[in-house]
Amino acid sequence: LHMQNVQDNMEHALEHMPEVFGHVVMLYINCKVNGHLVKAFVDSGAQMTIMSRTCAERCGIMRLIDKRWSGIAKGVGTQKIIGRIHLAQIEVEKAFLTTAFSVLEDQSMDMLLGLDILKRHQCIIDLHRDTLRIGSANIETKFLSENELPENAKLTESIPM
Amino acid sequence: LHMQNVQDNMEHALEHMPEVFGHVVMLYINCKVNGHLVKAFVDSGAQMTIMSRTCAERCGIMRLIDKRWSGIAKGVGTQKIIGRIHLAQIEVEKAFLTTAFSVLEDQSMDMLLGLDILKRHQCIIDLHRDTLRIGSANIETKFLSENELPENAKLTESIPM
Repeated sequence: LHMQNVQDNMEHALEHMPEVFGHVVMLYINCKVNGHLVKAFVDSGAQMTIMSRTCAERCGIMRLIDKRWSGIAKGVGTQKIIGRIHLAQIEVEKAFLTTAFSVLEDQSMDMLLGLDILKRHQCIIDLHRDTLRIGSANIETKFLSENELPENAKLTESIPM
Repeated sequence: LHMQNVQDNMEHALEHMPEVFGHVVMLYINCKVNGHLVKAFVDSGAQMTIMSRTCAERCGIMRLIDKRWSGIAKGVGTQKIIGRIHLAQIEVEKAFLTTAFSVLEDQSMDMLLGLDILKRHQCIIDLHRDTLRIGSANIETKFLSENELPENAKLTESIPM
């Protein structure tokens, strides 16, 4: 009887919310850092904005890193923080957003926009319109569609923490 | 000279965006599952909605778990998935949202609302108004203030992935 209920629930779910069995296209936006295109992951669950060393090299901003702020980032395993860039500008749809971020040694994602920058710039993650609005700059940018995602994004897995 | 630039940048940042040196209050909302209060973490960076076993027991919904969907969740270390609840309702501000979620054996967070439910219910994470709007139910709920956060939230660290 119990198993029958569970089975009924699954059939109901398959019929009425098939998307919960599928995979979800994660949230990325296009931006530019020092004139270089970067596809940035938008993550309300991350405390801080980060960039990978590879991406910082490509953007030509390694010299801005303050290595006095190096260390170890915990949370999910540990990662080496090379240092921090205290003042950088991220260009989104022709607007320039001032921010600070940490640069990580081994990080598969190019850039991740965390809650620090999202709050600072009064962002609105709108999953109805599928856009990120940036209140401080009064602009809106579309989240990337699945075929525009960076390669490694297609490999990311589900679970946080 | 280089070090001087970095130092100037840091001083500028300290003056104009002191919040990027502080810590950020993460996003939680109050909801109810089977009548039990749950403080749920709102995470646009997570692919799927999950609940801890402890929380599922407290909410009295263990019997709804379909154990045929057990397995291992990867992403950030690995975690044991006990199974999946295909059809559940989450009450937010008197509205009931239908969803499915996985139940994890070892998970310090009670519940995490991932991009699957956030998209399904056309949510808007509004960091200007500091609210979560749920389009499908036409309601809005305040993010919890720091003193309302669950104990373990105060321990969470920065880095994703």
